[in-house]
Amino acid sequence: MKQVPVGVSARHIHLSAEHIGLLFGAGYELKVMKDLSQPGQYAAEETVVVVGPKGRFDKVRILGPARPKSQLEVSRTDAFALGLKPPVRESGNIDGTPGIRVIGPAGEVELEEGVIVAARHIHFHTDDAAKWGIADKQLLTVRVEGERPLIFEQVVARVSEQFALDMHIDTDEANAAGVKTGDTATILSE
Amino acid sequence: MKQVPVGVSARHIHLSAEHIGLLFGAGYELKVMKDLSQPGQYAAEETVVVVGPKGRFDKVRILGPARPKSQLEVSRTDAFALGLKPPVRESGNIDGTPGIRVIGPAGEVELEEGVIVAARHIHFHTDDAAKWGIADKQLLTVRVEGERPLIFEQVVARVSEQFALDMHIDTDEANAAGVKTGDTATILSE
Repeated sequence: MKQVPVGVSARHIHLSAEHIGLLFGAGYELKVMKDLSQPGQYAAEETVVVVGPKGRFDKVRILGPARPKSQLEVSRTDAFALGLKPPVRESGNIDGTPGIRVIGPAGEVELEEGVIVAARHIHFHTDDAAKWGIADKQLLTVRVEGERPLIFEQVVARVSEQFALDMHIDTDEANAAGVKTGDTATILSE
Repeated sequence: MKQVPVGVSARHIHLSAEHIGLLFGAGYELKVMKDLSQPGQYAAEETVVVVGPKGRFDKVRILGPARPKSQLEVSRTDAFALGLKPPVRESGNIDGTPGIRVIGPAGEVELEEGVIVAARHIHFHTDDAAKWGIADKQLLTVRVEGERPLIFEQVVARVSEQFALDMHIDTDEANAAGVKTGDTATILSE
C-alpha cells in the first residue's frame, strides 16, 4: 500500500522579496509562526489583505520564505467570492493568470498576475519515489477515505530531495471528501 | 455508457407548511421562480436568513413545495462559516442533526434540528434504473470529468417514478471536480 499523509491547504500567498518590502517596509523579514511539512517552508506570522473585483479576504496567511514571483493560491469557492476565474495550475506557473490587489501595513501592490487554484499534487522525497517507482510529473490516481470517499485522478507527482512525503489538496477538495490534515491517502496506480 | 447530467446544489432550505406560515404569515403561498429538474420541485422567489453560532447567510433560497419537516442543506464550507458540524445525510433523515435560527419577513423560527450536508445521490426514473439494472439505495461509483477529474464513491441511487435522471452534488464537490450544472457524469459500476 502506497500511503501518503494528506495536507489541506487553505488560501495563502507567497510573496517576492520586492513585494514584502513594498507591503511591510524596506528590508522587512517575515517572522516564522509555524514550520510546514516541506523542509524550509513556513507559515509566517504576517497576513495581508487581498481585494478582488467582487470581494476581499482580510487575513491571508503568508507562506515563506520569499519566492521569485508573488502568487496567491485560493480554492474555487474563494475565487467566486473574490470575483476571479483563476485556472488550475501548478505552483510557479502563473503566466496569463488573473492579478489582484494586495494590501499590507506599509503599502500595497497590484499584482498583474499570480492568482491560481493550485493543482493537487504529492510531494515525494527522491527515496520514496524510487521505492515506489514514481517519476517527477507523473499523474497519479489517489483514493482518499474520508466521510465521503472519493478518488482524485490526475494528481501530479513532484519529486525532489528537498521534499517530504505529503499530498496537498485545497479546502474544496478536502470538504468534498470530508478529510483533514493528517488523514491518509492511498495511491491506486501510477 | 451510463451517463447522467450533473446538477449542482447551492445551499437551500425546505420548509414545512407550519414554518412557512410563521416566517411569511398565516396561509402564505410560495411563488414559483423556476422549476427544478425533479418534477413538481421548484425554486421559490422567497429567501430566508439563517443564523448559526459563528455566521449567517442573508439570502437562502427556499425550495418548494412544503415538506413535512424543515431542512437546511449546506456545503461543508458553508457549515464552517455558520459554525455548525452537520453530518452528511440523505434528505429527510434529520434525527439528531444541528438546529439553526431562520428569519423571514413575518417572524422567525428556531429549528431544533434539520441542518445537513446532503449526501451526493442520483435520481433515477424507474425506467432508467430498470434499463441499467440499478436498485433504489444502491451505492454507485461515478466519474465526473471536469477541470479536475475525480471519482465519487458511495453515490446513493434513488429510484422513483416521480424522479428525472439527475446527479446531485454540492458546491464543494462541484468545485473539487471543476464541474457545473449540465455537465455529464458516468456511472462506472453498480
